[in-house]
Amino acid sequence: MRKNNPHLQVLVAEKAGFCFGVKRAIRIAREAAEKDRGKVYTLGPLIHNPQVVEDLARRGVVVSKGIPASDGAVIIRSHGIHPQILNRIKTKGIKIMDATCPFVKAAQEKAALLKRQGYQVVVIGEKNHPEVQGIVGYAGKGTIVIDQNEHFPNLSRFKKLGIVTQTTYNFDAFSKSVSKLLNSAKEIKIFNTICNATADAQKNALDLAKKVNLMIVVGGYNSANTSRLTQLCRGASRKTYHIETANQLKKKWFKGVKKVGVTAGTSTPDWIIREVVSKIKEMGN
Amino acid sequence: MRKNNPHLQVLVAEKAGFCFGVKRAIRIAREAAEKDRGKVYTLGPLIHNPQVVEDLARRGVVVSKGIPASDGAVIIRSHGIHPQILNRIKTKGIKIMDATCPFVKAAQEKAALLKRQGYQVVVIGEKNHPEVQGIVGYAGKGTIVIDQNEHFPNLSRFKKLGIVTQTTYNFDAFSKSVSKLLNSAKEIKIFNTICNATADAQKNALDLAKKVNLMIVVGGYNSANTSRLTQLCRGASRKTYHIETANQLKKKWFKGVKKVGVTAGTSTPDWIIREVVSKIKEMGN
Repeated sequence: MRKNNPHLQVLVAEKAGFCFGVKRAIRIAREAAEKDRGKVYTLGPLIHNPQVVEDLARRGVVVSKGIPASDGAVIIRSHGIHPQILNRIKTKGIKIMDATCPFVKAAQEKAALLKRQGYQVVVIGEKNHPEVQGIVGYAGKGTIVIDQNEHFPNLSRFKKLGIVTQTTYNFDAFSKSVSKLLNSAKEIKIFNTICNATADAQKNALDLAKKVNLMIVVGGYNSANTSRLTQLCRGASRKTYHIETANQLKKKWFKGVKKVGVTAGTSTPDWIIREVVSKIKEMGN
Repeated sequence: MRKNNPHLQVLVAEKAGFCFGVKRAIRIAREAAEKDRGKVYTLGPLIHNPQVVEDLARRGVVVSKGIPASDGAVIIRSHGIHPQILNRIKTKGIKIMDATCPFVKAAQEKAALLKRQGYQVVVIGEKNHPEVQGIVGYAGKGTIVIDQNEHFPNLSRFKKLGIVTQTTYNFDAFSKSVSKLLNSAKEIKIFNTICNATADAQKNALDLAKKVNLMIVVGGYNSANTSRLTQLCRGASRKTYHIETANQLKKKWFKGVKKVGVTAGTSTPDWIIREVVSKIKEMGN
């Protein structure tokens, strides 16, 4: 925790910002851009942070919707990719650089393992998130996704359930889903694939929210883990704003506020967090 | 649900009394007593109901603390037995009749399987219950018991946890323990070995408790599942008495009461439940 001026205290959560997997993906992309200038692609944004993706674009990393021409290099983004798409890229003979977060890779492997072991595979996470879609690909046909925002499926027809979870999912939501499943299947094998960076960031954010009057959560609007931090802080009955950059801050938010907490998603770069903190301090004066 | 006189309504829970495993154990004991008159033993009471055990004693089934002489027949009781004791009986050449509840046997087998598969075995249940001690025996050395009445152990040193549960345990307590374990181990394999009879009886008792002014729970004071029914009804903020027999009923309990619910443990015989219901009706008049 870093303390600030006496008018408005700004406290930054300990585990805010880039996680190991994101740092690694950005390093891989930057190195590739230096080597293969002008021919480096990512299938979809490398990470869910528009500002970082813009910075990479300036360095020559192009976001591609489809599989690019065969003379380029493709970076598999941190969320991983469906194995069928990976195979399609391979058959085209394009150079592949795998920036899949190692924790996501572990979740993919565990899902495939559960399938081989005869379990009905269940992925607990957001149905439409690319990471979840990738994991589902590794678990194969018939894989079921349990999404807390959707109707809970009746799985009582399955005797053996094998469970993995989106690496950035919230532990409580994961645990609640497991409790419900315990009631239906007699055998359940669970790999808790929530990554520590996510768990720590969520814990730190909640602890901080309890100590301040207002929370500012910084990160991509398309970032699931950033949105979850926002939800968690709001769930703790703390007034919370989710912003992408410092210029979205509004002076009126800080009127009469004595302590502000700042946290950020695992895909939010440190320079944006620093800008946000400086701007809040200015506004508080 | 059976309805009674207009002064005091007595409602009996649907799934009250003997379960499959208890019926089977009593049948085995009675048949053995008819064949081997005077030489039939059980190691500890066959089931946790003193009145049934007395009835069996009259038929010649003797409760023995140690292993009896070699010319008798030993009935393994419904809760099962530690495999070391079973082996000791076997080496003595005594006739063995296994009245272990098939659901308890399944829990023992699953515990042994988890051990063979390299899991740290965890039994969720009552540390001192003979069923749990038997299961622990099958899982072998180093098995950990998680008892909701005791301090929750820190198991974060184990990577792979394998879980079974006492067949008569309460689902919510089981589920809460699993949630806590999910936080510590990355891999958990769970066999939900709670038997349906227990789950149904608990559900029925709770449903009934909500509809009446007073609950009477009938069953052995040494019966874990009966005690749990009492706890559950009390947990639902319903005034509840736990009795073993009809003559423990007190007229003053029913003063001003309009609806009484009756339930019973899985080791409580039907004739005791009937006596209790008749006596309550008499008192209500």
